Amino acid sequence: MAEAAGQSVEIVEVGPRDGYQGIGPFIPTATKIAFLERLAATGLWRIEIGSFVSATALPQLSDTAEVLGACAGIAGIRPQVLVPNEKYGRAALAAGSTFLAFVLSVSEAHNRSNVRRHLLESVEEYRRLIAALPDGIDVRLNLATSFDCPFDGRVAEADVLALLEELVPILPDAEICLCDTTGRASPDHVERLVAACHARFPQARRWALHAHDTYGLGLANVYAAWKQGIRVFDASFGGLGGCPFAPGATGNVATEDLAWMFRRMGVATGVDLDALVPVACDGAAIPGGLPGGRVRHALTASAR
Amino acid sequence: MAEAAGQSVEIVEVGPRDGYQGIGPFIPTATKIAFLERLAATGLWRIEIGSFVSATALPQLSDTAEVLGACAGIAGIRPQVLVPNEKYGRAALAAGSTFLAFVLSVSEAHNRSNVRRHLLESVEEYRRLIAALPDGIDVRLNLATSFDCPFDGRVAEADVLALLEELVPILPDAEICLCDTTGRASPDHVERLVAACHARFPQARRWALHAHDTYGLGLANVYAAWKQGIRVFDASFGGLGGCPFAPGATGNVATEDLAWMFRRMGVATGVDLDALVPVACDGAAIPGGLPGGRVRHALTASAR
Repeated sequence: MAEAAGQSVEIVEVGPRDGYQGIGPFIPTATKIAFLERLAATGLWRIEIGSFVSATALPQLSDTAEVLGACAGIAGIRPQVLVPNEKYGRAALAAGSTFLAFVLSVSEAHNRSNVRRHLLESVEEYRRLIAALPDGIDVRLNLATSFDCPFDGRVAEADVLALLEELVPILPDAEICLCDTTGRASPDHVERLVAACHARFPQARRWALHAHDTYGLGLANVYAAWKQGIRVFDASFGGLGGCPFAPGATGNVATEDLAWMFRRMGVATGVDLDALVPVACDGAAIPGGLPGGRVRHALTASAR
Repeated sequence: MAEAAGQSVEIVEVGPRDGYQGIGPFIPTATKIAFLERLAATGLWRIEIGSFVSATALPQLSDTAEVLGACAGIAGIRPQVLVPNEKYGRAALAAGSTFLAFVLSVSEAHNRSNVRRHLLESVEEYRRLIAALPDGIDVRLNLATSFDCPFDGRVAEADVLALLEELVPILPDAEICLCDTTGRASPDHVERLVAACHARFPQARRWALHAHDTYGLGLANVYAAWKQGIRVFDASFGGLGGCPFAPGATGNVATEDLAWMFRRMGVATGVDLDALVPVACDGAAIPGGLPGGRVRHALTASAR
């Protein structure tokens, strides 16, 4: 383990946002808060706790303001919320959020479908939101369809870089997350894009990867990104996060699978895997959820 | 895909051996032969069709001689059979096998449990089998527990290299397969061991990786090995191959997942993925089987 000695990564738990958003039956707010308490107790301090979005479009996350309020009482948690435009960015700030994840898509078709705007409009809304940002707010940029688009297929690396030419100068301090929205990124693709981003934007402070495991490549893609120097990874407890438009497709790479891989590599995550597995099992059992991942099966099936 | 252009890999379909051996209800011989015909028709020409082993220990594979005989009628197939010692190696040759996969374990404890011999006895049996080998027989060496042992935990790279110092000179022409028996190898471990093997044994003709997906790391480990130059990979259709000693644990990395990953990478496998998916679905439905893998779900759930 010489190579990894002393290294660490940061896991961003996105189950309470990406994992829940496709679940039909409303998860009671108290249940959401109880899961946040249990997740934070395992050492998962960065948690995407919800979205500020249209309650009509995503009723499951309509209680995000209330959940955010409850985070004040959860030791160690650093809650981030997803926002799809300027208006909801301001709403999140008004609700007391101090960590915004602004999402837009590299693919024009997906951006229109996901946030109902032309890509250039999204860029301008991001610019205005950042220009008016109060002090002390952390920002992440989520670049959906950085590898592949459900409508247009493989996304060219040049398109990602061209969009970043617009976005990075707006706030070089933002964390930039390359999102594999469809799960169709392959590890060689991840390697190439991450290397190109690092080379082109040395001023960007920090990069992250958001991997889906729909085709079983979640951990392979995380490993490829890690080899290229990425140290921040999104994941979802119980592997929650199936896409409502692709029944049977699984969701985000499972937090417990990620924690297991890095533990085997001797890379610190700060996560207590033994404490996480029962939470992941309970998350996977949320009615209407579409769980994934291997490690909770392997660790609960065997006494070893 | 510049990096991968023009590259190819060889997939060894091991479902009919490793996938079936843990299944309790006997799979009728005609069913086994029908699956081989369908698998070969997808382009999977190298197939491990069974083992010559004690019928008491592994009744599921007691019909391997008959299955091997039927392969003469299957276009394009190159059947290999697993043998655990000299006696069964000779039995396989007597039955007409021309491709033997000799298995022994790096870990003494696992070797005793798996093939009921001291490791040095296994080495000597391999030596004698090779010394008396007729012309025209291909040989592979399966090194079980090359990364981790169910009894002793992580296996030191030095132990693998020391064992190979004995084995490689016996037949440098043999294909050597590093087997992740427990699925607990991590991709950095795979990278290091493969690099060390290549450096120490330049005379060895060819290396392979046998990955399990118990902890979701099958494809990550395959990718890591591919980056280090390995071009032969074992896999099991439908991800069959759960370990009877770890209920809930999944088996070999799924052939269709491997074929998908390499297709996305632009690396040729010779496998027709669209033809393979229905075979994998039927394989996953074999009574008593413990299937795995993601790609058959993703591709059958979505019209895309």
